[in-house]
Amino acid sequence: MKIILDAMGGDNAPREIVRGALLAQKESEADTVLVGRGEDILHVLKEEGLDTLPRGMEIAHAEQVITMDDNPSNVIKEKPDSSIVVGLDLLNKGVGDAFVSAGNTGALLSGATLIVKRIKGVRRAALSPIIPTAKGGAMLIDCGANVECTPEYLLQFAFMGSLYASCVMGIDKPRVGLMNIGAEETKGDALRKETYKLLRQAHDDGRLLFVGNLEGRDIAFGLADVVVSDGFSGNIMLKTTEGMGLFFASLMKQMFTKNIIAKMGALFVRGGLRSLKKMLDYTEYGGSPFLGVGKPVIKTHGSSNANAIRSTIRQARDFAASQVIQEIANNMEHMRLPDQGGGTG
Amino acid sequence: MKIILDAMGGDNAPREIVRGALLAQKESEADTVLVGRGEDILHVLKEEGLDTLPRGMEIAHAEQVITMDDNPSNVIKEKPDSSIVVGLDLLNKGVGDAFVSAGNTGALLSGATLIVKRIKGVRRAALSPIIPTAKGGAMLIDCGANVECTPEYLLQFAFMGSLYASCVMGIDKPRVGLMNIGAEETKGDALRKETYKLLRQAHDDGRLLFVGNLEGRDIAFGLADVVVSDGFSGNIMLKTTEGMGLFFASLMKQMFTKNIIAKMGALFVRGGLRSLKKMLDYTEYGGSPFLGVGKPVIKTHGSSNANAIRSTIRQARDFAASQVIQEIANNMEHMRLPDQGGGTG
Repeated sequence: MKIILDAMGGDNAPREIVRGALLAQKESEADTVLVGRGEDILHVLKEEGLDTLPRGMEIAHAEQVITMDDNPSNVIKEKPDSSIVVGLDLLNKGVGDAFVSAGNTGALLSGATLIVKRIKGVRRAALSPIIPTAKGGAMLIDCGANVECTPEYLLQFAFMGSLYASCVMGIDKPRVGLMNIGAEETKGDALRKETYKLLRQAHDDGRLLFVGNLEGRDIAFGLADVVVSDGFSGNIMLKTTEGMGLFFASLMKQMFTKNIIAKMGALFVRGGLRSLKKMLDYTEYGGSPFLGVGKPVIKTHGSSNANAIRSTIRQARDFAASQVIQEIANNMEHMRLPDQGGGTG
Repeated sequence: MKIILDAMGGDNAPREIVRGALLAQKESEADTVLVGRGEDILHVLKEEGLDTLPRGMEIAHAEQVITMDDNPSNVIKEKPDSSIVVGLDLLNKGVGDAFVSAGNTGALLSGATLIVKRIKGVRRAALSPIIPTAKGGAMLIDCGANVECTPEYLLQFAFMGSLYASCVMGIDKPRVGLMNIGAEETKGDALRKETYKLLRQAHDDGRLLFVGNLEGRDIAFGLADVVVSDGFSGNIMLKTTEGMGLFFASLMKQMFTKNIIAKMGALFVRGGLRSLKKMLDYTEYGGSPFLGVGKPVIKTHGSSNANAIRSTIRQARDFAASQVIQEIANNMEHMRLPDQGGGTG
């Protein structure tokens, strides 16, 4: 298994990306191809005490770097020798099994769609992170790739999320919920009402385990394994969850460093604090698979450190080793609305 | 100042509503009119050791009760003698200065719109709770009254929220942010892009302090006093915030009750834990004003206890004592889009 890494993407590139690859290599999790400026990558390796590339690691040189300020809609054409474009090309050619980037999300999404292309029949690919819940985590699909959606897109997100949860995460019969503003099937806007019917039908046909509408509260308590949303409100939910996690962490820090007595208190719950911190740390949950694309592409958090990169490499390996992309293709006939059938996907 | 209370609304009615009114009465915060089944209300008073109504408290009998299962769209006509309808009628007639209910949100909203009516020119009234942030709290407008919105609605929400924040919450030049999925003005769907321009214009005209687009993360960190949203994603954000708060609270409880050592640890941070709990407890933030209606109407949480009711009575008193409704009317010419001007509001 070989994972292609965008060595130049994210706030801590190339240092943390290269270090993450080294961690994965040490634990024999996967071979890696580091895509980016060769000299910069070698410089980091030198800092880590390595004069040559370790076994199982390669460098693919890419001269250009896509920054957060680049406009996603034309950067793929404008920067053909960037680490994202070169990396996706390598993925497309079969040089590696999956591509991981912590860089510009928009550029990665448009690059993946243009270069690797969608699975035949998939209307829109979706960004689908795992968000922390009381039951360990749930996949939120979509969370920002598609701000305006149709019921058919959401039906496809439901299938893709459910297939990922079963094929990659090993969940038997994943519970699929529709993010909405009330539990009753009459709740929400036209998009939600129509999608509810489609998911209900897929449930009745035995193809999905649809648990109905879920509110933000229910999601935090882990009432579903897959949460279906349009990209706009999904992104609002994701960022709110992140923000609340950071806010809560800062409150805890304040509480436990207020005075010497509080600091002593922290010692009594050291183990608990550590696992709480882990639970709230989104880097622990790996990256966001970009589902619907013909090969595994994962976006990982821009602030990823080496540990987060290592987690995402492991996730990319599991994604690539699974049959999820084939399964999505196999289920295509159930993921299209009859009156819109045809070959536009 | 006299506040009309729906004594029959919410999970803990009439007991906690009546007890909340007693708390407010003891602290001379406001006189109250309890609307609902007289015998039930008197029964609670008896349980509290009172044989007669205390000074400053009245009962207005209403035989019917609207439940959470009632359909909001026709319950106002079907249950004319319900506590919500009778209470809103009393408000309309000037018997009290504000109406507070913990009951069926949809019924309260349609009742307020039908009976009390909107301020002339207001397109849609909005539900606007205060959500906890690192800076104390921010008003989120709308959070569920309007699932489908136009740029003009959002412009009006921005003005109404800003005027409430300055007139009622005493914030000088409230910072108004647009909830979106990225900071740049080109981010989001068509609704957000159009609204951004309108808010920018209002800012340039010196009528609003528009701080731009805000993501869920920014909101938790208190980068705005007023957050403008459509009702769908606003509701998702509100419920996610609530859910995460409850989730954290349960994690903390687990952590501090794990074993005897952890329990001792809790003693060291008792004060900090108390203020943390308070910060995450949405009942501390009072209810959600229903802005855009001609008189003060506040929805308070269905699970409100006596303390939450007391907070909301205080909030209703401040709302009624302020000039916010008059100020909204005064600013109407800046809250309408020129090409849609006219008298439909």
